[in-house]
Amino acid sequence: MKKDITIYDIAEDIGVSPTTVSRALSNHPRVKEKTKKRIFDSAQKLGYQSNIFATNLRRKNTHTIGVIVPRLNSPFQSSALSGMEKVANEAGYNLVISQSLESMDKEVANAKTMFNSRVDGLIVSLAGNTEQIEHFRPFLKKEIPLVFFDRVPKQPEISGVVIDNVAATHQATSHLIEQGCKRIVHVLGRLEINVYADRLAGYRRALTENGIPLRRSDIIVSDLSEEAGEKVVSQLIKMKPMPDGLLVSNDNCASACLAALKQRQIRVPDDIALVGFNNDMISRMVEPNLTTISYPGFQMGQTAMELLFSRLKPSIGTDQNPPKMTVLESQLIVRESSKRQ
Amino acid sequence: MKKDITIYDIAEDIGVSPTTVSRALSNHPRVKEKTKKRIFDSAQKLGYQSNIFATNLRRKNTHTIGVIVPRLNSPFQSSALSGMEKVANEAGYNLVISQSLESMDKEVANAKTMFNSRVDGLIVSLAGNTEQIEHFRPFLKKEIPLVFFDRVPKQPEISGVVIDNVAATHQATSHLIEQGCKRIVHVLGRLEINVYADRLAGYRRALTENGIPLRRSDIIVSDLSEEAGEKVVSQLIKMKPMPDGLLVSNDNCASACLAALKQRQIRVPDDIALVGFNNDMISRMVEPNLTTISYPGFQMGQTAMELLFSRLKPSIGTDQNPPKMTVLESQLIVRESSKRQ
Repeated sequence: MKKDITIYDIAEDIGVSPTTVSRALSNHPRVKEKTKKRIFDSAQKLGYQSNIFATNLRRKNTHTIGVIVPRLNSPFQSSALSGMEKVANEAGYNLVISQSLESMDKEVANAKTMFNSRVDGLIVSLAGNTEQIEHFRPFLKKEIPLVFFDRVPKQPEISGVVIDNVAATHQATSHLIEQGCKRIVHVLGRLEINVYADRLAGYRRALTENGIPLRRSDIIVSDLSEEAGEKVVSQLIKMKPMPDGLLVSNDNCASACLAALKQRQIRVPDDIALVGFNNDMISRMVEPNLTTISYPGFQMGQTAMELLFSRLKPSIGTDQNPPKMTVLESQLIVRESSKRQ
Repeated sequence: MKKDITIYDIAEDIGVSPTTVSRALSNHPRVKEKTKKRIFDSAQKLGYQSNIFATNLRRKNTHTIGVIVPRLNSPFQSSALSGMEKVANEAGYNLVISQSLESMDKEVANAKTMFNSRVDGLIVSLAGNTEQIEHFRPFLKKEIPLVFFDRVPKQPEISGVVIDNVAATHQATSHLIEQGCKRIVHVLGRLEINVYADRLAGYRRALTENGIPLRRSDIIVSDLSEEAGEKVVSQLIKMKPMPDGLLVSNDNCASACLAALKQRQIRVPDDIALVGFNNDMISRMVEPNLTTISYPGFQMGQTAMELLFSRLKPSIGTDQNPPKMTVLESQLIVRESSKRQ
């Protein structure tokens, strides 16, 4: 019987170390292209057989993962990216990132760019106005792993990582009610985005459980910017009766609300109790410190990248795994801005 | 004499509009690849001649600009990226971004990824430990425009945009001296980075001009993180005499210093006057509000991208322009944290 060809035979054939051969066959970036070519040629000549080798010949691994996010200007996104980078780095992968700037048109262009750059996988958090995900079809068709995080599409057959936003605002709203709040305003982003739709549902559930009527005027849709803080507060002070609870969907905007309230001599938490979202640094720096919801960006990024890598096996462009959606927990962090009891 | 072939001849030859031909020849993304191929074939068959057409045949325009930054976790970086996106969007270009995470090794890998993705141009802010720029040589060799911003290499033959950091800290330090400060501590990043080396020079110049001796112990090199605030303050309180001025190279770390000072009942600005850097949102939210230096990230990103585009002409991969370095102005914004007079 003919002996199987091993990496040692190839190493001897062209005079390199077995380690180099092994690395070249798994397409390790350290091995020079010239050496790889000599090793591949020898492997074919001698009749070396391996699935991984065959697959790498079929589709070249770029060791690059694409990431598309709405905007790069929030601590949450940079934490999520840090989590992704950590996992990717350890596996010898590089990230390329692009912003959709909340525009589906730009997301479509980004997806095309990522596809043409032949990324080995793609991680996406959707733009605010993305209504369908046809633009990601080429990835699914080529069995290139595709994972969504935080802002995910409605379609059931997708993979991703989300945080339980219903539970998060349910807990925060219940806390405000326990602190004696009778009228709670909720400031949040566009309701087409799953994240905010879920937060609204959690807020609504807590009100209902406590027999507090839901008023449409108590739901303020906003871009959650620094400038929005002033606008929100100027709306609040006209409401009758004036709200005594305020739940804002990020810490930046909550801090800006706090500044606008203080400027009007409205006391936090005595006149109005305030809760932010994300546990960003700013929530610990303003006075009073903000009660907030720890929204684990780093963990989410890590989990998304791990999920993606689990789908990269056995090799690039062969993702036939069933869809999987992971749900992470958030946590309410109570600080001075909401303690009235 | 033989008549020159025009786009109208090509249009007639294959039955499409002259507009489509013109677009295809300049490689406009709207024209389908199939149509482009027919037009290119006809152009070659009929003998159409044009420099742009020839160049586009040589190197295909991807309408993608690569950006490599140290980290995506600062408001300065996200503002700079917003400025870049604005200019790129208007020109129909897409950005792909990667982080070096302050590591030259990763920057080398990022540059390779960008090169292999065939970006039409590259904008870079260097990692903290980047000592030479050989890894960008392939771009220069192929005449692909390369522009640095903020953190630029020492080499003279490069193009980029910087802020006058010497002037910035000279102004801030002079302001602290005017407010009666006798001992000013400067907290900044690694001195291998041009940005911090220049800031140190500005600080030093202001001290010298005012006859204040420079003490090595008054220069604290730090990662400028939230955690660094506590460390800096615990160093400060051991100094004899205790410093009465503190200049910190970003607003996050300055805010963390402020919190650590307040926790020890040290009054700002009465016991110690504090100046931050960047004019981030947090500088307006903490109490007292931080005096800071407006470091125009958005304008810098815009200028860098405009400089890049000016070098993309006449066409992709033909940058033979002389190097150009643009210097932007910063501005001192005086608020409560440093007003002692």
